[in-house]
Amino acid sequence: MEVQEHKFKVIGTRPIRHDGVDKVTGRAKYGADISLPGMLHGRVLRSPHAHARIKSIDTSAALALPGVKAVLTSEDFPKLAAGVVAMGELPMNPRYLSMNLMAQDKVLYDGHAVAAVAATSSHIAEEAVKLIKVEYELLPHVQNVLDAMKDNAPILLPELRTSGTPEKSDKETNIASQLRFARGDLEAGFKAAAVVVEHEFDTAMVHQGYIEPHNAVAQYNTDGQTTIWTSTQGAFTARDQCALALDIPASSIKVVPAEIGGGFGGKIGIYLEPLALLLSKKTGKPVKLIMSRADVLRATGPTSGSHIRVKMGANKAGKITAAQVWMAYEAGAFPGSPVGAGCMTALAPYDLENLQIDGFDVLVNKPKTAAYRAPGSTNAAMGTETVVDELAEKLGIDPLEFRRINGAKEGTAQPAGPKFPRIGFLETVEAIKNSPHYQSPQPKSGKGKLKGRGVASGFWFNAGFQSSATVNINTDGTASVVTGSTDIGGTRASCAMIAAEVLGLKAEEVHPVVADTESIGHTDMTGGSRVTFATGYAVYEAAQDAVNQLKQRAATLWKAKPEEVVYQDGAVSRTTNGNESMTLKELAGKLPRAGGPVAGRASVNPRGVGPAFATHVVDVEVDPETGKVEILRYTATQDVGKAVHPSYVEGQMQGAVAQGVGWALNEEYFYDEKGTLRNAGFLDYRMPTCLDLPMIETILVEVPNPGHPIGVRGVGEVPIIPPPAAIANAIYRAVGVRMTELPMSPPRLCKAIAEKSAKK
Amino acid sequence: MEVQEHKFKVIGTRPIRHDGVDKVTGRAKYGADISLPGMLHGRVLRSPHAHARIKSIDTSAALALPGVKAVLTSEDFPKLAAGVVAMGELPMNPRYLSMNLMAQDKVLYDGHAVAAVAATSSHIAEEAVKLIKVEYELLPHVQNVLDAMKDNAPILLPELRTSGTPEKSDKETNIASQLRFARGDLEAGFKAAAVVVEHEFDTAMVHQGYIEPHNAVAQYNTDGQTTIWTSTQGAFTARDQCALALDIPASSIKVVPAEIGGGFGGKIGIYLEPLALLLSKKTGKPVKLIMSRADVLRATGPTSGSHIRVKMGANKAGKITAAQVWMAYEAGAFPGSPVGAGCMTALAPYDLENLQIDGFDVLVNKPKTAAYRAPGSTNAAMGTETVVDELAEKLGIDPLEFRRINGAKEGTAQPAGPKFPRIGFLETVEAIKNSPHYQSPQPKSGKGKLKGRGVASGFWFNAGFQSSATVNINTDGTASVVTGSTDIGGTRASCAMIAAEVLGLKAEEVHPVVADTESIGHTDMTGGSRVTFATGYAVYEAAQDAVNQLKQRAATLWKAKPEEVVYQDGAVSRTTNGNESMTLKELAGKLPRAGGPVAGRASVNPRGVGPAFATHVVDVEVDPETGKVEILRYTATQDVGKAVHPSYVEGQMQGAVAQGVGWALNEEYFYDEKGTLRNAGFLDYRMPTCLDLPMIETILVEVPNPGHPIGVRGVGEVPIIPPPAAIANAIYRAVGVRMTELPMSPPRLCKAIAEKSAKK
Repeated sequence: MEVQEHKFKVIGTRPIRHDGVDKVTGRAKYGADISLPGMLHGRVLRSPHAHARIKSIDTSAALALPGVKAVLTSEDFPKLAAGVVAMGELPMNPRYLSMNLMAQDKVLYDGHAVAAVAATSSHIAEEAVKLIKVEYELLPHVQNVLDAMKDNAPILLPELRTSGTPEKSDKETNIASQLRFARGDLEAGFKAAAVVVEHEFDTAMVHQGYIEPHNAVAQYNTDGQTTIWTSTQGAFTARDQCALALDIPASSIKVVPAEIGGGFGGKIGIYLEPLALLLSKKTGKPVKLIMSRADVLRATGPTSGSHIRVKMGANKAGKITAAQVWMAYEAGAFPGSPVGAGCMTALAPYDLENLQIDGFDVLVNKPKTAAYRAPGSTNAAMGTETVVDELAEKLGIDPLEFRRINGAKEGTAQPAGPKFPRIGFLETVEAIKNSPHYQSPQPKSGKGKLKGRGVASGFWFNAGFQSSATVNINTDGTASVVTGSTDIGGTRASCAMIAAEVLGLKAEEVHPVVADTESIGHTDMTGGSRVTFATGYAVYEAAQDAVNQLKQRAATLWKAKPEEVVYQDGAVSRTTNGNESMTLKELAGKLPRAGGPVAGRASVNPRGVGPAFATHVVDVEVDPETGKVEILRYTATQDVGKAVHPSYVEGQMQGAVAQGVGWALNEEYFYDEKGTLRNAGFLDYRMPTCLDLPMIETILVEVPNPGHPIGVRGVGEVPIIPPPAAIANAIYRAVGVRMTELPMSPPRLCKAIAEKSAKK
Repeated sequence: MEVQEHKFKVIGTRPIRHDGVDKVTGRAKYGADISLPGMLHGRVLRSPHAHARIKSIDTSAALALPGVKAVLTSEDFPKLAAGVVAMGELPMNPRYLSMNLMAQDKVLYDGHAVAAVAATSSHIAEEAVKLIKVEYELLPHVQNVLDAMKDNAPILLPELRTSGTPEKSDKETNIASQLRFARGDLEAGFKAAAVVVEHEFDTAMVHQGYIEPHNAVAQYNTDGQTTIWTSTQGAFTARDQCALALDIPASSIKVVPAEIGGGFGGKIGIYLEPLALLLSKKTGKPVKLIMSRADVLRATGPTSGSHIRVKMGANKAGKITAAQVWMAYEAGAFPGSPVGAGCMTALAPYDLENLQIDGFDVLVNKPKTAAYRAPGSTNAAMGTETVVDELAEKLGIDPLEFRRINGAKEGTAQPAGPKFPRIGFLETVEAIKNSPHYQSPQPKSGKGKLKGRGVASGFWFNAGFQSSATVNINTDGTASVVTGSTDIGGTRASCAMIAAEVLGLKAEEVHPVVADTESIGHTDMTGGSRVTFATGYAVYEAAQDAVNQLKQRAATLWKAKPEEVVYQDGAVSRTTNGNESMTLKELAGKLPRAGGPVAGRASVNPRGVGPAFATHVVDVEVDPETGKVEILRYTATQDVGKAVHPSYVEGQMQGAVAQGVGWALNEEYFYDEKGTLRNAGFLDYRMPTCLDLPMIETILVEVPNPGHPIGVRGVGEVPIIPPPAAIANAIYRAVGVRMTELPMSPPRLCKAIAEKSAKK
């Protein structure tokens, strides 16, 4: 496949997004906007305990409250066998999914759903849940990943016997799984090192912090068919999960994706949808469930807190001789932390002969983690990229030069084994080196404030998965593009632009549509930075399918052979007779007499996923009195492949940096000694606002992905990986302390500065 | 193309309709159910005059009423040039369309829209229209088709100069167009006749009488894009008409088809949609317009009243030697009566050497006519089929035998020229002959009541036109079928069944979806009995496309060639290795690893339309004192091609007969001398209810259409054609009068009986 960049007319431009007016005028329909006649409102009763046995649930008082139509408990869910099934290409454990949707014999975290109510108003539903009497037997809980790995730790899932220690064991455990990537001779590698750096890191559990809380409206019909409206990253993914959790056919559910107010991985899983379905089935009415902010923070999927050990050695030339990483990630209450992705990505920016990476997926009494933008990778990079920085420092090598010496390129073997295709890591290093930011002098520390500059890199593999698209030619020669991909990051625009490029139309002449699960072919979730790559691929193929039909139609009109017709720049022309040509607009009006309308289609599962690399530089100012860190300047570069809509690529980079800054400096789940989340709101769960951030500068490095007809790589995730490490490295330059905990919040930084002073 | 009927497993069965539960539980969303946040309510001011010049419109008082947000007049519409443009395969006159939507300098009929208001409530809107002051100059009006053809008749459209008289003329005229089909030697034919029968007929303007009034909700966005929700027979047709009337691109409008409570042709045209769009544009809010029943009867499209002369002769052997038909149809206020279809169908059941058919499209001061179930054909058959009956009677030949002698078959030239493909007219005659009804004794007249039996036949050509479909394979091995065809007569079921047949699934395993104009390829309106034929054709092809992809996917899994894979009975198997096979359900789960999802697509404009013939028999009882006619027994046979879902075919036949009975006996537009419609409501516009009708017996004659892969013919229209003639023939047998007026209402029948008595 050859990417012919020079030919692009639409790709690379910056048209206004098609859904822009709807969104800025408030007309776009989010899940909370859905309202149906006779609709009931639901509310979920959640556990106040981190770990407890449910002795009894008495719903009688709630049911007796006027206006209450149904109460739901785990009794209403089918009992599912343990074990993993395939959901597309992803493994899924329906039993654990179901147990997370509604606690069975035990509650496993503060916020775990215990019961749900449907009533004629949300106020009545709220009153009703208070009337449900649950008798609990408190159990000891564990919330720290290292504590949870200890012998005699409180056990969350007694059935879990996967051996989590190096020696095989049949004991109960919280270690759901472990994996190791290793190659070369680690011992020899460290022996060959001139410098070895080793640190242990702790990173806090953090939430994606999307603005829109989870929601679901379900309407069950007596023929067994249910329609669900929900803000989801994947309508088909939501459908398949509901089907697995409730043991009903996927096709008995139609999911209509609402607009989505942020997801970042956290809206791939389901929480309310099956509850709404079952309540609708019980009541015969549509039922709506909406989470409060506290519900979102307590009971949806944040990403793992983690404990990470990194040991790396390098020789005097600056070549890394050995690298060892040990990572334990909090899975939350059920298996499934992103530790695997952490292992795949941790050392991937570097060409390493000797490495060992161990990863552990560990249950703790916290909400089941979900994906969060390059899941598992940011934690890992906090460890590896600060150690790399220290190695470079100790060897007296510029950190970017150190990356140039060790950086992965086409053909480099990844830690997980496979060799990289054409990638642009070193190009991002070069771009930072040449950036106005890096070329400007290091910031000078002022009165009482200390300044520093740090860099860090990140790698994300990106996903492919399945996508479908149809391209319909309108009677006026414009087109519509139908996909099944929820638009989170501007993918309506990118998909429309790809179709416009192929059809020779303007971007605004192509209308993008996000369809429900019955109206388009199967499409996996919006996640893994896959939509513009994979759904865009399907759109490209569907547009080509339309072009081929248009050529046939023109051939029919001209009584020519289809192969005599060329389609270029939005017009057909006849190769054997240069005089005959028609624009798409002209041809569209003649289709009725040429064989009928034209609609192209394609379904793909593309294998040529293009990996993404990012390198960032940040200048910080530290107030040593308070420990407060100010971001003075931030520049992000990234190999974005071919940028279909550069503004939205830049937006992805800026948004990810903002989240990375929050993760680096402020965000964390605070649990008290009882295991109760104490900061379940945006006042106390401190995300950065625009006042906390400078304008994030972006530099797009475009190394087209040879595995995609337009050269697209995923761009949404990798930019969240470098920020914490880059900021840690900048803090070190400012105040001389190597931070090993996230967030690097004022108290922690103050403490570290004080400890350093004490050592002097 | 070979129709392999014996193989059908789903086609021909009677599954429950997929939309049944939604419809019987009231959950199906009709246009009136649409409600949007901030929505305004509109109301249309209509002319109280049949013909008047608009001297001035003063909207100031209306605009001053609190709650009124906008007033619309023809000033808000673009001024369009005269002339006909192509809308798909149909001609369309945007200027007349626009003038019918909103009167310009003149009102042309009682009910003609003059202005519209949008206000915060429908009550305020209703008050506001009363405050609009319109100054009219009354003009003489004409409502009878023969009067309108006279020299010096009041002229509706002064620009109309199409010569309507045999001699070319440049005078103003109400004759919009005329056409003639002729062949053979008419004079010689009549000379060869042993018997000649000649009559003149008058039929009244009648309305389709759908239960659901017209409705439209429009939401204009500041980017120029509008979404319209409406109950329409064709979302794309509505879109294209709105675009033409408002001179904006079709793609700037998205039409979302609501469920539809009956259309019968009357919801192909548009009335409220552009008004709602313009009001929404003016106000920045969504605007909803709903017609009252009176609005529907006064201002939407009924079908033509007509004057018809029929002269036919036959020799002693019963062979028709000559036939002449002259038809003048009321177009209403703008050109476009169905007289062309009347001419095409009038004599088509018969094999005729000598014929002449003349048709005239005539403007009158009544609402612009619209299609109504086999438009133009029922009027014509009232003439031709009663004359045929009289010919047979006079020759002493059984009326069915007379049809056997003269009936058209494969190869017979139609009046319009083309020869019939394989048709089943004589099979319907034979079926009636052998029916339990016809085989039972003629009804015996009782005390004071007179009974009679009549037969009549009908022909309808059916339509093809453009349709698109996609067939999506679900992860659980079921499928969804997406089409753009509004489901009026059970076509969700028939389309799902065709896909199920091809895919080897059960009907209920295929979910039919009716999509909006952006989500599916172009699809013409639900009309012309075309959906199961043409959209079904697209579904068949799309399902085959899916099957081909499924074979490819299986081949990938088996490392085989696609041509080595066979798909049969919902399973793939390998021809070169009999052991390897997979059900669709198994294969569906493996698609992710076999190349991705499967979605088939097709767009068609099929040419192999199968004509439809019907023959009916009816027993009536006439009360000579009151003139009331009771339908005692009714049997309808029809060549339905291959009946995909026999119950819905029977339902089409029964419904059409019910409408035909209303047309025959009761329904008519009553205008007073001022040209005001006096029976604009269902109390006075008398449609038959279930109390007026016996159970309609149906006999399906299945002569597969060789032009369709399943053998489908359109079935929805032809059964409305025979009823008036059959009932007239039965009345003659009962009371000895040949009725020549529709409806054959009690006063008319009393009068005819009295006149006959007077002649004795």
